[in-house]
Amino acid sequence: MVIVLREGTTDRDVGELVARLHEVGAEAHVSRGEFRTVIGVIGDRERVMQMPLEAYPAVEKVVPIMKPYKLVSREFKDEPTVITVGDARIGGGGFTVIAGPCSVENEEQVVEAAHAAREAGAALFRGGAYKPRTSPYSFQGLGEEGLAMLARARDETGLPVVTEVLDVRDIEVVARYADVLQVGARNMQNFLMLRDLGYQEKPVLLKRGMSSTVEEWMMAAEYILKEGNKNVILCERGIRTFETGTRNTLDISAVPAVKNASHLPVIVDPSHATGVRELVAPLCKAALAAGADGVMVEIHPNPREALCDGPQSLTVSGFRAMMDELAELAAFLGRE
Amino acid sequence: MVIVLREGTTDRDVGELVARLHEVGAEAHVSRGEFRTVIGVIGDRERVMQMPLEAYPAVEKVVPIMKPYKLVSREFKDEPTVITVGDARIGGGGFTVIAGPCSVENEEQVVEAAHAAREAGAALFRGGAYKPRTSPYSFQGLGEEGLAMLARARDETGLPVVTEVLDVRDIEVVARYADVLQVGARNMQNFLMLRDLGYQEKPVLLKRGMSSTVEEWMMAAEYILKEGNKNVILCERGIRTFETGTRNTLDISAVPAVKNASHLPVIVDPSHATGVRELVAPLCKAALAAGADGVMVEIHPNPREALCDGPQSLTVSGFRAMMDELAELAAFLGRE
Amino acid sequence: MVIVLREGTTDRDVGELVARLHEVGAEAHVSRGEFRTVIGVIGDRERVMQMPLEAYPAVEKVVPIMKPYKLVSREFKDEPTVITVGDARIGGGGFTVIAGPCSVENEEQVVEAAHAAREAGAALFRGGAYKPRTSPYSFQGLGEEGLAMLARARDETGLPVVTEVLDVRDIEVVARYADVLQVGARNMQNFLMLRDLGYQEKPVLLKRGMSSTVEEWMMAAEYILKEGNKNVILCERGIRTFETGTRNTLDISAVPAVKNASHLPVIVDPSHATGVRELVAPLCKAALAAGADGVMVEIHPNPREALCDGPQSLTVSGFRAMMDELAELAAFLGRE
Amino acid sequence: MVIVLREGTTDRDVGELVARLHEVGAEAHVSRGEFRTVIGVIGDRERVMQMPLEAYPAVEKVVPIMKPYKLVSREFKDEPTVITVGDARIGGGGFTVIAGPCSVENEEQVVEAAHAAREAGAALFRGGAYKPRTSPYSFQGLGEEGLAMLARARDETGLPVVTEVLDVRDIEVVARYADVLQVGARNMQNFLMLRDLGYQEKPVLLKRGMSSTVEEWMMAAEYILKEGNKNVILCERGIRTFETGTRNTLDISAVPAVKNASHLPVIVDPSHATGVRELVAPLCKAALAAGADGVMVEIHPNPREALCDGPQSLTVSGFRAMMDELAELAAFLGRE
Repeated sequence: MVIVLREGTTDRDVGELVARLHEVGAEAHVSRGEFRTVIGVIGDRERVMQMPLEAYPAVEKVVPIMKPYKLVSREFKDEPTVITVGDARIGGGGFTVIAGPCSVENEEQVVEAAHAAREAGAALFRGGAYKPRTSPYSFQGLGEEGLAMLARARDETGLPVVTEVLDVRDIEVVARYADVLQVGARNMQNFLMLRDLGYQEKPVLLKRGMSSTVEEWMMAAEYILKEGNKNVILCERGIRTFETGTRNTLDISAVPAVKNASHLPVIVDPSHATGVRELVAPLCKAALAAGADGVMVEIHPNPREALCDGPQSLTVSGFRAMMDELAELAAFLGRE
Repeated sequence: MVIVLREGTTDRDVGELVARLHEVGAEAHVSRGEFRTVIGVIGDRERVMQMPLEAYPAVEKVVPIMKPYKLVSREFKDEPTVITVGDARIGGGGFTVIAGPCSVENEEQVVEAAHAAREAGAALFRGGAYKPRTSPYSFQGLGEEGLAMLARARDETGLPVVTEVLDVRDIEVVARYADVLQVGARNMQNFLMLRDLGYQEKPVLLKRGMSSTVEEWMMAAEYILKEGNKNVILCERGIRTFETGTRNTLDISAVPAVKNASHLPVIVDPSHATGVRELVAPLCKAALAAGADGVMVEIHPNPREALCDGPQSLTVSGFRAMMDELAELAAFLGRE
Repeated sequence: MVIVLREGTTDRDVGELVARLHEVGAEAHVSRGEFRTVIGVIGDRERVMQMPLEAYPAVEKVVPIMKPYKLVSREFKDEPTVITVGDARIGGGGFTVIAGPCSVENEEQVVEAAHAAREAGAALFRGGAYKPRTSPYSFQGLGEEGLAMLARARDETGLPVVTEVLDVRDIEVVARYADVLQVGARNMQNFLMLRDLGYQEKPVLLKRGMSSTVEEWMMAAEYILKEGNKNVILCERGIRTFETGTRNTLDISAVPAVKNASHLPVIVDPSHATGVRELVAPLCKAALAAGADGVMVEIHPNPREALCDGPQSLTVSGFRAMMDELAELAAFLGRE
Repeated sequence: MVIVLREGTTDRDVGELVARLHEVGAEAHVSRGEFRTVIGVIGDRERVMQMPLEAYPAVEKVVPIMKPYKLVSREFKDEPTVITVGDARIGGGGFTVIAGPCSVENEEQVVEAAHAAREAGAALFRGGAYKPRTSPYSFQGLGEEGLAMLARARDETGLPVVTEVLDVRDIEVVARYADVLQVGARNMQNFLMLRDLGYQEKPVLLKRGMSSTVEEWMMAAEYILKEGNKNVILCERGIRTFETGTRNTLDISAVPAVKNASHLPVIVDPSHATGVRELVAPLCKAALAAGADGVMVEIHPNPREALCDGPQSLTVSGFRAMMDELAELAAFLGRE
């Protein structure tokens, strides 16, 4: 950490700051320039980070040098994390496709969609039983009944199930039915939910918050790893920007950026990122080429009957066509 | 609602859509133009909103006409909502100041800050016992112990206490100690927490999400009102933009925009919006002049000892000076 | 400037960097920590800034310490700049209102609007003869003919005229007719236009770019001052964000932030910032309370005949009512 | 166009609006609902667009239905535009790489870089002779002298040259030396420059503005096509968002979105989009997979001597390695 002091800072101010840094066990290297004085700080990151350094009138700026996360970083563990769920693997060189409807509507729809997903080559099945909805008047999901339908779809097809935990009180029930616990974008900074998911054994799929930086996303994963659950899959799903032509803006750069920074697998959700069906297939290919470990897409046996997000769901035939292309491209790139 | 159809839509497509609209009890007025056909829809908003209209290939765009919220709107209730907590009133023409430290650190600090707040003219006292922190290694708050300290500060000063509910499981305990339950920006779309706060009797202070539109914020309040709790105070605290000179960008236009749209009181938090102490006083005055019902500011007896957000906390003397100016300005404007 | 080096940097890397810094006449203070080495650099800002320091593999981050602008800063000149145009003054404690239609449409409209502006208390008159329009099919302004109409409005009312320079080749002709040369948001980083305006004698009103930081805005003003024109009025007009309820998001915090950083006057344009007539008056009051030196608002004798931006223009009676309120508030605040 | 009227609108208001629409030759279909009245408008787009409809008190919202651009749209011309410059082709199924240094520094550097570009397989050479710089104290480019160096690099290598026009007054001189005229992000809405480039015969490479929507970008291209120059290459170069880990956020979705909307070729510039060398190669592959017609990348014989943007420039060997991968991937995808 580097502390830049304001012009006109006195020796007493500097001495006071240095003394405080020593109190928390840190070393302070003072470097006086013609206009500015700079203090380089070395010490226990956590303890120094808790000091309100910017509240000192003499302090102009505090510049962190080391990344604020540890367990998720490549410095801590260089080897890529590979997550195994049933027959599916995520991370470590392959390319994994997760597919299914936005929300669970009835057993027939779910089972039909799961069969379609498996036949086209998906490795995991997704579907929402608890739905975050902007309006209290919109369909909120089937709850545990929906979870049971998802479990039946898994039993029929063998595909492990990914589903969202919307409320921290539902972690147990979701973990009873599902194979991977999804944290939605709106909960990426629900820190107590993250902590409690850290106590779970099942893998967590952590969506990036719609206004979160990549660094904040890494910190959210750190909350989970810190409590013991090492199986976190990161999912880029678009960030909120001024562009209104797509629902969000898919931050494709986040894929190689995360690969450079972390050992955790990262996948891409182009359905939610764009909200536009026509963009899903080209963006899945882009994600694969950019180095993502997989994609998560919405499919629906009959998109115009879908209770949510119909406009972005692929039809079964559209999904099959895309999977053929992805499979060839993945094979060419030596991915799976 | 207006449905704009794509060019080349056939009569059969139109007929199919109209039939579906009739099924949910809506009327459909078809208007054919030279290039486009448009359907005006009248009917039960909730039922129509649940139809995945944009999934129909014939549909190019769906344009909602009516606002998606009801109970929070001026159309529903024109008279401003006034919220009474102890001796404090929020809304209805006055200008209410809520002040206190970012986080509760120890009893002495809290009680000292509460006295300072009251003496300078604040009407409510704030302080965080549960703190949302980007890093799992940062100070996370004192929890129930902190709540007890806040309650003691209230007992000593008479100022009602505002504090954040960070986890839905803590609603009960927070409601036992606090007078106003705060929903932080990161929980603005924690829909089940909103619903459960709707069952509470204590007022809720609902911060705007850092990437939420004003309309989404109104919808979040609607979740609370829908369950019966009519006492919601809206709090603008800055949105996330590309500007890095301030922590967030205070959206001052949201104040008159909310006043036009809703009967609920709206206050401004310039401390979190900017993260810069020097900007707090001018922005409090701007909030008052723009028509806000109050402000919430951070003060700390000793900002450089603060365990969080020191750089934006006002000193006690700075707070007093600001309160004098605000009181005069409020009196001139006939507010309070 | 502080240069933070990557972990594992060798002495040779450090030596190479220090040698390069010495070549451009800078001093380099090397400070070695347990994990990182940091170099504090002191020297001629311009020369060091031109070194591509971040291209060195050993360099992790370059942290500028001093502000990149000089002539516009309070450090360079603490006394507020006051700009006098005809009988109007901008800066130095008063509150100046600039009003007029978005675009010049015909002589009658312009003269009528100018009379209305003067009678209500505006100090300058605005109107666009050259209009930046997103579509090539929209009305592009009357050009020199429009400038002549503005000049006639000034002759009739005595109000100095502010108008936009849209093309660098029009600086001369605009300067012949107008009293203040406006740079629109889209030209804020048209660096050669800024330079050429720096050669002019007439004051420049510099709008903030819709995706420019406050710092970049200061740098744009620096371009003008560097060439000799010291009379720059800064104008906050909203930045582009995800919020769609208003056309842009008025960054009210920029007002006190600019006042802290610079001696130049800063005004606010709530008409373009919001695009919503109802928000103009409350935001003008907020701008005054936040410390702005003035506002610029759109008025139109008949907004529904306006060739551009009708929805945000105040009617003459609406403008008068607002001016009465602003005059009282300004008097109370000791501003003019 | 659909006009939604406010609640409580009288027949007289409706009649007045309809009369005004008839005056500009438009048809108006009035549709009365229980709560709202909606008018569907059919007529000459340009004339209706110039009416200030939103200024009518009765009008709540105006919803455009047709896209505001024409000549650039697929509806107008479905066949992809292919642009031929010397031996290079852009659009129509191939994948074209444009490479070169950010700025022209001296003849040796430029010629060396051009040879490296050609040998690795680039089809065009880029380099800036006029540089837009945030600071007036930074290196501003060599001007015409730099253009002459670029021309010499073309003469030696046969690669056509792409270079930026920074000022409308330099169009002629740039067109004398260069083969493709680049419009930078900051000039994307310099409408008079766009118009003047429409009079040119040489192709234009139009970068997307950093806060421009895809629709606004299409409109900027429309300005050029409208004047007769049909050869416009669109270049996605990242938009400004809250994310600070990359310089801008590459909007990869814009590639398929533009392909759907327009016949013009679209390429991607990952160097400026991210500012991070390590991200360039994965993003070039992503661009290819997403359907882009090419990429533009920065290379420098010696990035640490570069006078601008060193950190994002590829070394010659890094560029060669990437080109090998891109060539294989393009061949597999049947592109080129």
